[in-house]
Order: sequence, then C-alpha cells, then structure tokens
Amino acid sequence: MTSRMEAAILDRDAEPDERGPLGPLFAPRSLAIVGASDDPAKWGNWIAINALKGAHRRAVFLVNRRGGTVAGHPVYPSLRDLPSPAELVVLSVPANSIEAAIDDALAAGSRVLVAIAAGFGELGEAGREREARIVARVRAAGARLLGPNCMGVSDAGAELFVASSAAETGPIGLISQSGNLGIELGLLLGREGLGFSRFVSLGNQADIEAEEVLEALVDHRETRAILLYLEEIRDGRRLVAAARRAHQAGKPVVLIAAGASDAASRAARSHTGALATPAAVIAAACRAGGIVEAPSPTAAVAAIKVLLPEARPAGPRLGIVADGGGHGVLAADLAAADGLQVPRLGLETAAALAADLPSTASTANPVDMAGGGEQDFSSYGRVVETLLASGEVDAVLLTGFFGGYSVKSDELGQRELAAARHMADARDRHERPLLLQSMHFDAMPNDALREREVPVFAAAEDAIHALARAVHWRDLPPAPLPIPPAEQAVVADDYWTARQFLEEAGLPVAAGRLLRDGETPAVEGLRFPVVAKALGLRHKSDAGGVMLGIENDATLAEALADLRTRLSPPAIVVEEEAPLAEGIELIVGCRRDPRFGPLLLVGLGGIYAEILRDTAVTLGPVDQQTAEALIRGLRGAPLLLGARGRAPLDIAGAAEFAASLSRLAASHPEIAELEVNPLIVLPDRVVALDARLTLQNSG
Amino acid sequence: MTSRMEAAILDRDAEPDERGPLGPLFAPRSLAIVGASDDPAKWGNWIAINALKGAHRRAVFLVNRRGGTVAGHPVYPSLRDLPSPAELVVLSVPANSIEAAIDDALAAGSRVLVAIAAGFGELGEAGREREARIVARVRAAGARLLGPNCMGVSDAGAELFVASSAAETGPIGLISQSGNLGIELGLLLGREGLGFSRFVSLGNQADIEAEEVLEALVDHRETRAILLYLEEIRDGRRLVAAARRAHQAGKPVVLIAAGASDAASRAARSHTGALATPAAVIAAACRAGGIVEAPSPTAAVAAIKVLLPEARPAGPRLGIVADGGGHGVLAADLAAADGLQVPRLGLETAAALAADLPSTASTANPVDMAGGGEQDFSSYGRVVETLLASGEVDAVLLTGFFGGYSVKSDELGQRELAAARHMADARDRHERPLLLQSMHFDAMPNDALREREVPVFAAAEDAIHALARAVHWRDLPPAPLPIPPAEQAVVADDYWTARQFLEEAGLPVAAGRLLRDGETPAVEGLRFPVVAKALGLRHKSDAGGVMLGIENDATLAEALADLRTRLSPPAIVVEEEAPLAEGIELIVGCRRDPRFGPLLLVGLGGIYAEILRDTAVTLGPVDQQTAEALIRGLRGAPLLLGARGRAPLDIAGAAEFAASLSRLAASHPEIAELEVNPLIVLPDRVVALDARLTLQNSG
Repeated sequence: MTSRMEAAILDRDAEPDERGPLGPLFAPRSLAIVGASDDPAKWGNWIAINALKGAHRRAVFLVNRRGGTVAGHPVYPSLRDLPSPAELVVLSVPANSIEAAIDDALAAGSRVLVAIAAGFGELGEAGREREARIVARVRAAGARLLGPNCMGVSDAGAELFVASSAAETGPIGLISQSGNLGIELGLLLGREGLGFSRFVSLGNQADIEAEEVLEALVDHRETRAILLYLEEIRDGRRLVAAARRAHQAGKPVVLIAAGASDAASRAARSHTGALATPAAVIAAACRAGGIVEAPSPTAAVAAIKVLLPEARPAGPRLGIVADGGGHGVLAADLAAADGLQVPRLGLETAAALAADLPSTASTANPVDMAGGGEQDFSSYGRVVETLLASGEVDAVLLTGFFGGYSVKSDELGQRELAAARHMADARDRHERPLLLQSMHFDAMPNDALREREVPVFAAAEDAIHALARAVHWRDLPPAPLPIPPAEQAVVADDYWTARQFLEEAGLPVAAGRLLRDGETPAVEGLRFPVVAKALGLRHKSDAGGVMLGIENDATLAEALADLRTRLSPPAIVVEEEAPLAEGIELIVGCRRDPRFGPLLLVGLGGIYAEILRDTAVTLGPVDQQTAEALIRGLRGAPLLLGARGRAPLDIAGAAEFAASLSRLAASHPEIAELEVNPLIVLPDRVVALDARLTLQNSG
Repeated sequence: MTSRMEAAILDRDAEPDERGPLGPLFAPRSLAIVGASDDPAKWGNWIAINALKGAHRRAVFLVNRRGGTVAGHPVYPSLRDLPSPAELVVLSVPANSIEAAIDDALAAGSRVLVAIAAGFGELGEAGREREARIVARVRAAGARLLGPNCMGVSDAGAELFVASSAAETGPIGLISQSGNLGIELGLLLGREGLGFSRFVSLGNQADIEAEEVLEALVDHRETRAILLYLEEIRDGRRLVAAARRAHQAGKPVVLIAAGASDAASRAARSHTGALATPAAVIAAACRAGGIVEAPSPTAAVAAIKVLLPEARPAGPRLGIVADGGGHGVLAADLAAADGLQVPRLGLETAAALAADLPSTASTANPVDMAGGGEQDFSSYGRVVETLLASGEVDAVLLTGFFGGYSVKSDELGQRELAAARHMADARDRHERPLLLQSMHFDAMPNDALREREVPVFAAAEDAIHALARAVHWRDLPPAPLPIPPAEQAVVADDYWTARQFLEEAGLPVAAGRLLRDGETPAVEGLRFPVVAKALGLRHKSDAGGVMLGIENDATLAEALADLRTRLSPPAIVVEEEAPLAEGIELIVGCRRDPRFGPLLLVGLGGIYAEILRDTAVTLGPVDQQTAEALIRGLRGAPLLLGARGRAPLDIAGAAEFAASLSRLAASHPEIAELEVNPLIVLPDRVVALDARLTLQNSG
C-alpha cells in the first residue's frame, strides 16, 4: 500500500475505510512501540508484551535506541530502521523526546500516533503550546493523534492490545479520559464476567476527541454497550447525536461525567444561570441522548449490567422473590423509593406459586419462599419461571441467600447450579429479565448466572437503583430541534429592549409604555392598576425600583417622581398589572452553553424560583409538545392543573411561550441569556411580566 | 443456686443481675438444646455444634427424644432427665410440639426460653392466639421468652453461640427481626474484619422486645456499636430514649427499618396525615435518637465502618488524595453532592505535599499524586500524614489504586504494606480518620488497614455517603419534651370547636363569629374584608364552602344566603381576612403516632403543602427553639427571611405557635390530628386562618 493510499483512508471526505471509522487506530495493518523495554517493572515492557499478543495478525515492531530484544523479539534502534512502515505508532517515551519521535514516525509514513507521555495541555499554558505544536505537525502530515497523556487503545476483535494491563474482553466499548478509571472499570467488569470490545484512553484529546470515537463505537458490531468517562466535553451536540444513534441501534451508553458538581457552578448573572448548573446541563444532555448518567465506576457497571439487551426491563413492574422474609420487605421498600411498582399478583399466579411452596410462604408480591428453596431446590426455578411467565411483572428479582448453599456443601451447590440454569433458561424462554441479589454474590451458582448475563448484585439497592434507571432507557425523547439560522443581532440589553424584542417576536408581554427622563405620564390605553419599573438596575425589585399597585393618574405621578428622585433612572417603564392571585408564576429562561448550545429552563417562578429550585432544563430549541412535557414534569405542576378547586391554567399557552422563546434565543447567538420571570399563567392566557436579556461577553 | 434466687434475677424490681440486663439470656449458667440432632443437614445439629463451643464455660445439655449422641456428647431424651436445671433452654422443635416442650422447660426451672419455630403470630389471628398462650404460660412462671420464629442468640464474651451459623466475633451488637438479614450482616461485617459482640434474633417479639435488648446492649461493655433490623417497632419512645443513651455512651446505633416505604402510607385524613408518612416518622425518630438510618444491610455496614470511634470525623472538611487524576475529581464531585467540603489547602500544607510528590502533582485538594506513589511508596504515608496533621481537614480519603501493586508482585506488596502501616499510625497519631477507596479493595495491604479499623471501600460513593452521614452523628438534638398530663378531653371536631380550642389555649386565631342556621349577620367588631366558611364539610374550599373577599354587610348577607342555599350547613363562621400577600403561609400540624406518640409537622402551607412537600417532622412536644430550628430547616425558609426585598417575617412567632400547638396536642390523647393550615406568618405576627381537629377512632 502506498503512502498516498494510506493518507486517503484518513481523509474524512475519502472512501470509507473497510475497517470502519478510525480503522487504522483500532485495526492497524502494522504497529510499532517506541520505548519498548525489557525491564519488567516498566511501562514500555508491559505495553510491548501486550502488543505482541497480536503479532500473528500484524507486524509488531519494537523500537528502543538501546536495541536488544524484548521477550525474544528484536528491538530496532529507530523508526527509520523498520523493514516496512508502521501504520500505528505508539510513543512510550518521555515528553521531552516526543517531538523528535513524532518527526521520525511521520517521516516513516505512519498514519496514527498514540502519545502516552504526560506533560502537555494538562499543565496549563506552556504545556498547551507544546501540545498545539505536535498536533499541528501531525495534522500537516495528514495523520491523527491519540493523546497525549493517554494509556493506549485496544480492540479485542482485531487482537490489538496497546495498554499496560490486559483487561478481560467482552461486549463493552470504553472511552475514558482517565487511565486509572479505565483500569478500575476493567476490573469491575471482569468481576461480572464482562470485558472490553474496544478501549480508548483519550488523554488530552488534542486531536482525536470523544465524539469521534463514540461514533466509531456505535458502528462497531462487537460493541453492545458503551461506557464513557469524560472530564471535558468538547462538542456536546455531536456527542448527543452519536448517543442517539447508539440508542437507536439498541446500544446503551453510560456516562460518568466528572467535574460537573453543582458546587463548581459559576457565579450567576440570572436565575437561569444559577439554576442551569453544570450538573443540570449534563443531565439534560443525557436525557436528550438517551444516555444513562452514573456518578462512579461502580454505578456505571451496575447500570451496564441491567442495560444489556437480555437484562433490560420493558416496564416498571417488579416481581420480588425472597428466600428469607426480611429481604423481600427491604427490596419492596427500595423499589418503592426508586419509583418501581411491586404489583400484587393475580389469584392464578398466586395459586401456581403456592403449589410450589410451603404453606407458610407468601405468594403476594414480594414472594417469600419461607424455606421452600432449601427444602426443594427445584422450586427456585419454578417460582421464578411462574413469575416471568405471568405477564404481571416486567422483571424478577431473586433476593437473599441463593448461592450460599454451595458454601455449605458441593452437593447442595450442584442442586443450586441446576436451579440457576433453570432460572436462566426461563429468562430466555419468556424474554423478561431476571436479576439476583445475594449475600453470597460470588458463590459458584451465581457465577454461572453471570456467564448467562443474568446480573448478580451484592446489594439490593444497587440492583434496584440500576433497574429503575434501565426502565426509562427505552423512552428516548425527541431530539432538540435544529438550531435556526442567526437573525439580526440584538445590541442592547436594557429592560425596554428585552420587552420590545419579545413583543416583536409575537410573545405576550404586559402592555406598557416607556417614559424617558422628564416625560410626563402619558399612559393612555393602559388599564389601571399599573406598575412602574425604573430602568438601569440589575435587580429592579431589590433596589426598590419597582412600584406596584398604582391605581390612578395621581398615584402614578407620585410614583414616577419618587423613582426619579431616589434612583435617577435613564427611563421608566409603566405596565399593566396582571391578576397575580388568579394565576401561577413560572420562570422561562434560555441560555447558550459553550458545549451544548441553546438550553431552555422552566420552573416555578417569582420569589420561589431559586428557593424551591423546582426547575427543569432541556437542550433547545424545542417544540410546544416538548415544552409542555417539561412543564408537566415539574413537582409544582399540579398547581397549574387546578389544585384545591382553583381553575385549571393555560398550560398549553405556557408551553407555546416556552417553545417560542427557545426558538427565538436559539436564532440569536449573541444572546447569552434570555429570561422571563415571572411568566404569569392565567386560566385563559399567559403574560410575560418581566424579562432579562444578557449579551455574550457582557457583564 | 435455688430456683427462687433465679426467679428474683429476672424480676425487674429485684437486685440487678451481676451479668447485666438480660444476663440469663446472654450468659446463662447452664444451657439445653431441645431438638439437638446428629444429622449434619439439620438446624438442630448446627445449633448444637455451635452451642457446644461454650461447653467449657457452662453445662450444655443436648435433648432429643430419640437419645443417642451428637459430636460425642450424650443426648438426653427429655428435659426432665437432665442432671441439673438448664437456665437457658433453646427449643429447636416444630411449632406443634412447642407447648409441651415449654411446659417441660418451665417445670425443670429454666428462666429463659428461646423458641426457634415459626407458625405463630406471623401467620395471623390463629397464630397470634397460640403465641399469646405460650407467652402467658412463660410469664406466669416468672420466666422470659425470645421468639418464637427466631434464629437464636449469641454473646462472644460469654462464648454463647446459640445460632445456626457462627459469625465472626467483634465489636458490633446486632438486634434483628430477620434471621437471614442477621446472616447477611454477619457476612458483610466479616468481610470488613468486624463481627458480633452480641447477636439477638428477635423473631415475633412475643415477650422480649427490641427496646429491652437495645438497653442491654447499651450497657454491654464489649459492644461498641449497635445494628438494628426491625420490621415492627413497639415502643418508639423507649427505643429513642435507649438510643440517646447509646449516643451519650459514644456507641453509634444504625437502624434498618423495613416496611416504612412511603408507598405503604395509609389513606390520609389531613395534610399532616399525608405528609407525616411512616418513612418521615421513622426519620424523625432516628434524628431524635441520634440513630443513623440505613436502607439496606450494605448501607448499614458502610455506616458502621465510619461510625466506630477511630473512624468518625469531627467535621465536614474532607481531604482527598488520589493516585490517579480521575479518582480525585470524581470523589470531589461525590463529596459536594453529599454536602461535604473539599477545602483548598493552605500554602504551607501545599508546599509540604509538593516536597513529597512529582512536579506534575496537584497539591490543592483533591491532591493528585500523579504517579508519585508508585515512584516512592513511602510518599503515600507522608502525603496522608501531612493532610491528617494539617488541621485543615477533618478526614482524609485515599482513592484509586492503592493495594493493586501487591497484585503485581510480592515485593511491591511489602512496600505497600509498609505504607499502609505508616498511614494507620498517622491516623492514630493525629486522631483524625482515614478512609480508603480502592479498585483493589480486597488486596493484602488493604486487609492490613481493615485490621486497624481503617474503613476500606470498593466504591467511592459508599465511602463518601457513609462519611457524610457520620459527620452529623455528633449533633444529638434535644430530646422531645416529656408528654404532659392529659387535659380534659375535647369531644367535638367541627371547625368552630377547633378554633375555640386554639383560642382558649392562647393561640392567635383570626377574629370570627359563629352564625347558627337562620341567624342574621351579626358581625360587629369584625373588620372587613371577611371570609365566610360553611361548617360540616371535610374540605371546605373544594366544596365551594368558603367565600373570600367579602367587603361589606350587603355582600356578606348575599354570601351567607348563597352558602345556605347551596350547602345547608349547620352553621357558618365569619372571620376577618388576613393580608395574605404580605406574608407566607405555613402548615403546622400535630399527630399522635401509635408507636412514637405526639408528632409535630411544619411546612410550606396553603395549596403548596402537599404539592411541594417542603415539610419537616419531629417527635413532640417541642420548645420554641426546636420549633424554630425545624422551620429554618425548610427548603422554603428563605421566603420567611425576607427574600428579594420583602420584609422579614415573624419566624419567632411561628416557632412559638408551633411549640404551643405541639404541647396542646400532646396533652390531649383523644386528638388524633390537630392541624393549622394555613398559619399566615406576617412581618409582626402570625394568625391561624384555618384549623382541623380529628379525634381518635373517628372518620
């Protein structure tokens, strides 16, 4: 293959590589490890030994300026000495010799470079410059770079193992920005009989980024589920789009997003800014992408276990079988706390269960076997199968002691093993998931269940928590609407401009008049009572810049004089008051996030907004239907539906308003935040009673 | 010892047993196992083998009507054949032969009986009668009964093991209503190098109840922490009092309360009833008792690990050390989510850390060792000690890989072991707790840490969640006030009675007048606007029985006529309206719980009460200070403090009202629920605008 052909493979506009996206990274035709070492305490040794496992699939060249051999393989002193070009080159050399190594690799025609060394962008400004320099060099040569500051790449199907430790292989694709977390996830998956189809340690993402790798994993047949650990998201919309494609392909995506704690939230310029925290934005992106968010490696692996196709439930109804009373009660409590249903079983199912169990057993739900299992091990399988076949539950959890008899004797263990096989077969026959919690989770019969991809847990709360999240996995919400083309930019951010901007977009705003300094009240056409608002104040109401309940011309004149004396505002806006007591106040806010683009926030408004934090965030823009679902999902939504004899309010109007606002904000990239608070929702209409507009790079 | 002396020991009014409370249960001078078996697949065998472990401390008699031997020990055909009396008799016989066995045991002079068999109260009415019968028989003989339907008792110090499996011994006292959960807790503790000082399987609590056993564990020197698993609480006040005594003795109490899910909440007669759910009441009791609540065995053991004296933190400031970057970031996120602080370290501490670490390390907080640990294992100990000694954090978490090097080689493992010892020594020297999270949690160096009672976790969220709860352990709130003597009973429950009741107790109620059917408006002394309320309706406002905003005599006459025509109420109450817009509405409710006695609930009121569920529950009665803390703890409390330029409201008045209401309700045992909703809190006063009174056994 000529170097030109190889270059074409990596050109995004060229014919697709038959090896799939990023083919030369995952299935290189040849490979070199620069920095290969014969010292078994060194990284360069571990990575060489693992890379050599694929030597029957591709040329694996070891390079070290000291020469010698590693595990019987010759070591070349330089990349220039290789007998043929290496398509993938791994640079396991210190940061200060990496630039020379890159030059050598590019000169020798390699197409993808993996840079292990730290000491670049993660160190700050100086490091970022060095990083930019090497990326520029790689890109100029038409090649690609993974890292720097990464721990390698693997592809089980291609038998490529460019990593310091060899994790188990299996159906999970991992994209990780931390090497150590990759190792931990590998260990945790290994304990579950799972492992990696592909593993990519991203490092600093100087060239190859998470979004592109995710796209490659979506298209990778052997990858059945995807784990992501990210500290930094570059193109959030692309990530969400790729995740949606994974969802549609039936591949769950689980994300551990680090550094998104609410404590890290920046100082806010508006309620929307304060309420759309980094954590809320990540959560919104996950909903939009059908991504399951996990706070830790343990939680991520628990989620993966119940999201694999055989294991994931079709609905929230859980059948619980306990081989000890207490376990059933606790599991039912945990299920209720996590929003799962534990339905009472029908008479027919209960009778079928009773036929297999002692008379002291409980056959409602939770089912308490009351020692029936240890009296007759085959009853485990029959009871579980009866539930799976009943059609009355979407999943079955067996909780308590199962597996523990194998610890007492081999003979009992064999009986348990037969029961385990029956249960796994029943799961397959009835195509409903089965989960286990056992105090003997690591006993032999439970390992046999793991091999059949029956998820087994040590803690019931982990099983139920994961299941509760998996229940909602199927419900992929509509994608956010496309971002509309930019309209003519807004240039001012005062209150009157914000009002006018909404009004011109056809949004309902309280009728009002602008009074410049010194102007006499000229408010014909406005109905009393009115409110007077002084312009030029960030929090008008905090500063006494808002005067409410003005009932007539005389009081209005007094109010204007008072505001002018106290605050010398550049102008005053006089507006009709709305009948606040007849409605409910919402906050509707839009914000442009640097990673995820336009966001929409709705919540209980007015003084309740920040205090009760009953808000919901979504990626925008959205249509009216999505906006209405968002509003109806608020804790306080019953207030809009006519609580305690009040008239139901105009939810459809509120949703239309929110949808329109989200489209308006999305078509104005110069607007950082656009917030209406409150939007009063009345029985027959909605009215914006206040608005705040913040331009990018202002304030 | 004569039988009379033994009877005296069990008499509560007699001299205390030198063996402590329940001495004959935990340290019997002699013991018999009825139903001892030589079949190694039977319960009666397992329990006999374990009981014989104490044969050098006391006579252990085995009884089975078939005779023979068990493990070389003679088996007596009946209790009547024993050479001397058995103080403790364990009845491992079926339910249908238990009554005869009890008669034999009592006739032979035994003082405590342990009944293993199921088939009693847990089966319903018929079982309850049999249970009452055996309890009566035992009590009549001056003896005590543990069970039935229990799994035994153990006391490590007394070498008493009356149980089917021998859990590890250690510092933990366990009281469990489920045998299987007892086994699970034993397994989980054993994995942590912990075990039981005493274990009591309560079964049906027919005679000996949890509260009494808890008291005995508080007084038991070898018990340093107490675990409770309860499905049924009998005397909640006694449980809380015993737990407070444990807290004052420095012994943490952790409770798994089963069956308290909110889904199980009964149909409500009032907001207070709906909001003071079983789960909320248990949570209130736990706060009052200084009890840590755990949803599962796993969570309970995690909590115990960080509550043991060496492990519990004095404050919320956490120092995080990661031997891989990602782990530090994730732990910091988790800590923030759980309300812990991760303070930036001072310059001096940061410099001391930097001296021990590579230049790429981060010495802020989280501290990232950046490979420093594997370059020089002694840096683990130095870094951890620098943090523990700094005075800038209350606890240190080491998170990531530690222990994993021992998996690579024995030599590396020995270096890690030395580091582990240094870290544990540093913990002792500086008397600040150290926790570990490791992906190699079960590696040898981490077992060495466990032996020193350094808690080691597999999952960072478990470590941090447990730590966050342990931080608050020291803050034991004041005990609820004593329940006052009963006052003369209230006999009616209509609105006017409720109003009068509050008014006579000196509580501020909106001025009002009662108009009997047909009476003309006679509302002199009331200031308009007024409100008219029709009596005799459960939810007055839902049924259109409340007419607001009546501005003058004429409108009042119309309103009364309208109410009478539509609803034919027995009477109408006319009241002054309060300036709702100037205040915030609270709900203040009292309820008498069958297990925990008087409860007080405060929350955001009016239509928000049930929708936002911003409520807090406590055991009552309380003083004003406690009531104020409760109110200030509401999410919505900032609304009372003067949010967004509004005047601060009369929180002290609201607290005084709540405290008075809690005392009033507590002195009326005939009142099931007494609720004021709303209590309007104004800048200078509070006024009850509505009240509801429910009598016991009504409705």
